[in-house]
Amino acid sequence: MLDIKTASQLTIDDMLAARERIAPYIHRTPVLTSSYLNDLTGAELFFKCENFQKAGAFKVRGASNAVFGLSDEMAKRGVATHSSGNHALSLSYAAGRRGIPCHVVMPRTAPEAKKAAVRGYGGIITECEPSTTSREEVFARVQAETGAEFVHPYNDVRVIAGQATCSAELLEQTEGLDAVIAPIGGGGMVSGTCLTLSNLAPGVKIYAAEPEQADDAYRSFKAGHIIADDAPVTVADGLKVPLKENTWHFVSHNVTDILTASEQEIIDAMKLTWQRMKIVIEASCAVPLATILKNRETFVGKRVGVIITGGNVDLDTLPWIK
Amino acid sequence: MLDIKTASQLTIDDMLAARERIAPYIHRTPVLTSSYLNDLTGAELFFKCENFQKAGAFKVRGASNAVFGLSDEMAKRGVATHSSGNHALSLSYAAGRRGIPCHVVMPRTAPEAKKAAVRGYGGIITECEPSTTSREEVFARVQAETGAEFVHPYNDVRVIAGQATCSAELLEQTEGLDAVIAPIGGGGMVSGTCLTLSNLAPGVKIYAAEPEQADDAYRSFKAGHIIADDAPVTVADGLKVPLKENTWHFVSHNVTDILTASEQEIIDAMKLTWQRMKIVIEASCAVPLATILKNRETFVGKRVGVIITGGNVDLDTLPWIK
Repeated sequence: MLDIKTASQLTIDDMLAARERIAPYIHRTPVLTSSYLNDLTGAELFFKCENFQKAGAFKVRGASNAVFGLSDEMAKRGVATHSSGNHALSLSYAAGRRGIPCHVVMPRTAPEAKKAAVRGYGGIITECEPSTTSREEVFARVQAETGAEFVHPYNDVRVIAGQATCSAELLEQTEGLDAVIAPIGGGGMVSGTCLTLSNLAPGVKIYAAEPEQADDAYRSFKAGHIIADDAPVTVADGLKVPLKENTWHFVSHNVTDILTASEQEIIDAMKLTWQRMKIVIEASCAVPLATILKNRETFVGKRVGVIITGGNVDLDTLPWIK
Repeated sequence: MLDIKTASQLTIDDMLAARERIAPYIHRTPVLTSSYLNDLTGAELFFKCENFQKAGAFKVRGASNAVFGLSDEMAKRGVATHSSGNHALSLSYAAGRRGIPCHVVMPRTAPEAKKAAVRGYGGIITECEPSTTSREEVFARVQAETGAEFVHPYNDVRVIAGQATCSAELLEQTEGLDAVIAPIGGGGMVSGTCLTLSNLAPGVKIYAAEPEQADDAYRSFKAGHIIADDAPVTVADGLKVPLKENTWHFVSHNVTDILTASEQEIIDAMKLTWQRMKIVIEASCAVPLATILKNRETFVGKRVGVIITGGNVDLDTLPWIK
């Protein structure tokens, strides 16, 4: 387990330790290319396909690093989180691999499909009312009763060190990158990318891509301090959460720029990726391609790593089918 | 160009020559696995992902072998076919790479999206009325006017030798296969699979998978002679065409069995593949998984190659969304 608590103390050794720790439980995901999308953008794009990752998303890297970094004594009390998305799936998966309980606090109004997915990975759901107050109360009670270790979806150095392993693989799989771009919500993946690239490939530019309708990271980046949105609405539902101090550290120190795209641009990029690359990706991971198409001059002629963060999509309600 | 005309004259050298000939124009597609689907079926499944192939389907193998096997003199008059599916795209793609014209006769009633896709790969469309008589008349006129070489979608030894390269790759990518299963429509992919496996891995069983509602190959196989359906209706729209003499040769000599699945089983297997493997596959390529799920005892404990034939799907009309 990492003894440190703040992002500024993280070093590349934490990423390397995470990599060794989680290797048995995750996939080394492939990097795909598309000559069609290269022609369209004028860039050379290298898609790091975390949609093929265990539990369907990169979040299993950070979750596994947190779970397998626990001492045996801490581990037996289990882990806990409040999330209805990929972090809940990933933490449940990792806890299952270690054979320990994973408690997930979810609003009772969350879609049944999401609850079923968490249960499918062995997570134990405790329902709360759909309000922050209720969530915090219920979560505190679950923690008090179980002694489970809280693993935050992104504002946790163990999680950030785990996410950092993704771009370490990408660097090995793709030579001569000029830039890497990843979607930004809470900033866990972007922070991990910063940790790895700033140490191993400091010349590589780091872009974050965000929905215009949930552009708190963009506005924070321009303002120089964290600004949180109040209940943003976007098709990229993995990207609604705000930055926190540990991810803000990396965003403010290492990110080259944050680019934004409209809802329609995100949906178009998502559909184009499905159509041309034949891969199922979440709306969130289409934001980077949407911003590359929109900011052609920034990327033309460049070798660009594009992190496809996940593939957990509700196939019954696709955003381009009304 | 192959001088031979009938399937019984094809040898493994024809596959090897095809492989060398088409290598610069096609992808060596990856083989993916899914621990979820392995658990579900009790088998070890190795998905050969031709949905990631150039032009989005395995058919580019056969089309490229036909196009690049032409003498310069023949090539300059171009190639021609009648198809509104993946063969038309693939032949257009291959002709474009050789810099020769590709004439495609399509019903004027074909969806605009399919016409646009053929034109996107450089194909020259001549429209006919939606009847066999009109198609044959218009096709004869196009051939007479251009001198273009007819490349049949599957009843052509050059095409079969090209499709045969797919399972040659699969054999190299996956050790110790017990069986290979592929969807069957006209039988081009299955014939190519038979050509390669019967020569290079004669112990590997060869299964063909077919929609119940277009089960002409199944009924032919049981009857011992070709039976053609009259206008079958199935969601697996690549599998509506009947066997012809060259593909019947392989089906009748080398196929272990033909298994069928209902429309709902095909749709469920398609959605399951998208959901769990995060890949976009056509309904046609879900038929093998549907039959594996249905015939558990045949495949349990076996290492099974599953050929995912293509990924060209109309994303606006998915069969599980009404």
